[in-house]
Amino acid sequence: MLIGFSEAEVFLRNCQDAVIITHRNPDGDCIGAGFGLKDILEQLGVRSRVVCHDVFPKRYNFLTEGGAGEDFEPKTIIAVDIADTALMGKYEEIYGSRVQLCIDHHISNKKYAEKTLLRGNATAACEVIYDLAQYMGVKITRHCAMCLYTGIATDSGCFKYDCTTPRAHEIAAEMMRNYDINFARINRNMFDVKSPGRMKLEGRLSELMEQYLDGRLVIVAVTQDMMRDMGVEMEELEGFAPMTIQMEDTEVGILMRERPDGVFKCSFRSANDINVSDICQTVGGGGHAKAAGCNVSGDAESVKARLIEAVRKAIEA
Amino acid sequence: MLIGFSEAEVFLRNCQDAVIITHRNPDGDCIGAGFGLKDILEQLGVRSRVVCHDVFPKRYNFLTEGGAGEDFEPKTIIAVDIADTALMGKYEEIYGSRVQLCIDHHISNKKYAEKTLLRGNATAACEVIYDLAQYMGVKITRHCAMCLYTGIATDSGCFKYDCTTPRAHEIAAEMMRNYDINFARINRNMFDVKSPGRMKLEGRLSELMEQYLDGRLVIVAVTQDMMRDMGVEMEELEGFAPMTIQMEDTEVGILMRERPDGVFKCSFRSANDINVSDICQTVGGGGHAKAAGCNVSGDAESVKARLIEAVRKAIEA
Repeated sequence: MLIGFSEAEVFLRNCQDAVIITHRNPDGDCIGAGFGLKDILEQLGVRSRVVCHDVFPKRYNFLTEGGAGEDFEPKTIIAVDIADTALMGKYEEIYGSRVQLCIDHHISNKKYAEKTLLRGNATAACEVIYDLAQYMGVKITRHCAMCLYTGIATDSGCFKYDCTTPRAHEIAAEMMRNYDINFARINRNMFDVKSPGRMKLEGRLSELMEQYLDGRLVIVAVTQDMMRDMGVEMEELEGFAPMTIQMEDTEVGILMRERPDGVFKCSFRSANDINVSDICQTVGGGGHAKAAGCNVSGDAESVKARLIEAVRKAIEA
Repeated sequence: MLIGFSEAEVFLRNCQDAVIITHRNPDGDCIGAGFGLKDILEQLGVRSRVVCHDVFPKRYNFLTEGGAGEDFEPKTIIAVDIADTALMGKYEEIYGSRVQLCIDHHISNKKYAEKTLLRGNATAACEVIYDLAQYMGVKITRHCAMCLYTGIATDSGCFKYDCTTPRAHEIAAEMMRNYDINFARINRNMFDVKSPGRMKLEGRLSELMEQYLDGRLVIVAVTQDMMRDMGVEMEELEGFAPMTIQMEDTEVGILMRERPDGVFKCSFRSANDINVSDICQTVGGGGHAKAAGCNVSGDAESVKARLIEAVRKAIEA
């Protein structure tokens, strides 16, 4: 059942011993939403604990270091920023079928919870939680403000992407005015800082960039041999797909990674208006308009030729 | 003389044939302020022209393509985002001594103009101009909103840096709500897009990064021989200093570039609280707390040793 702020308030004010589930591969929004909501529940006198299938990455220590909460048998199950129970990892089996409240901003939310507070037009789950707290008149602590700011900043690419709402900016302004958050340091850690390994990999990958179709298509192809050579696993190359559309004039970028079985996992990104999900569907894949993927068999050169042709058709259309 | 909005309004409503000077090496803020103010003057029925010592970079075409204004003998001289007439380039000699109105946000402004509208706590000159237009009740066009958004976004590093004000966020929210600006595309062009040459250079420089003092200091040293090898001029390495503090744990980053005369031009950046201006002063340089520089003679290794020692002292202090 979809609910609004007033029902969500009644629920939160009357719940007890809550576990707050965040999604696997946790990011700034689910961590911020989880720990921000934990603070809010504390203001309401409700004990809570934040759980995640994975360990929270070190760079979020400034949000998590107060602890995720003591161990207790929960009476209330809440999920934040989770569109589908499959994203809960091991917690799907434990809690997936009995989530009472889900607070989310993904329009794709599967409505698996008893009650779902969904704002599909919000930048981040943290935006929804901030507005809910304001609606409820709950005091927001500085730590809570830092949690919620972090979620909004990370999901919007620091207010850079299409998904940024005017409300996201207004909330940022309110947080800066009222809670003296150290936003510049948060943003440096979220957006500017890289591990030495990542720096080096970016350097290597940028040298592998190949331009096609007058520079409108960029392909970075990494074979198993090259990964061995660089000393990296395929998984470590996750997250490099956005690099492929950094070059000026690029419309579509593709990161091709050879799997151990020889099939190429191809991650597409669109810089502007070309729908890469449509392109991927022509070669058996799919995804979103700006980020999609497909798996293609063949040697690197023949896979490239096939993808170039598919992109050429889309650009000409 | 420092003036407020009311005097600035009287000035703008009564001026004629204005030339608007932007600073040399133009950036998003002075271009946005210049072309934004030109739009506002047009609303007031005042003819104006934007001038700059340098050609406006191509990536600002979406702001400048309407034209900088027809040629006429100006009766009014306005400067935007210019703290010192020395920054006007060739226009210093022509107009520097008779600027009637300066609109700026640099606390270091030399007050060279007859009237100066200075808001030293604003993120950008564009923030001052937006608030002035609101004060005056002038209609802001979509193009004007894009100009002013661009200035605020670029000077704040897309709302990332310390200098970002709550007001900057509020203005961004108002612009998104009222003028349907294509902010995501603006931000992609300002922050994410790189030339193929820059991509390649970043790759090369990231491989040259050397960590010292347990990773708290990073040095990238480029000799004349290496520049010849890479096929770049010293000037092309301008703007790469911020890369030196991208690595996690880095507190101070230094880009060392050997000049043709063998002296190393050293650009310092501070990631957090260490004052690099103080460090540079100990070796005959200076600058700002977070960005400073010095010139040091010697071979690369001895210059490095001297800088490492200076940074070590500052970190220990």
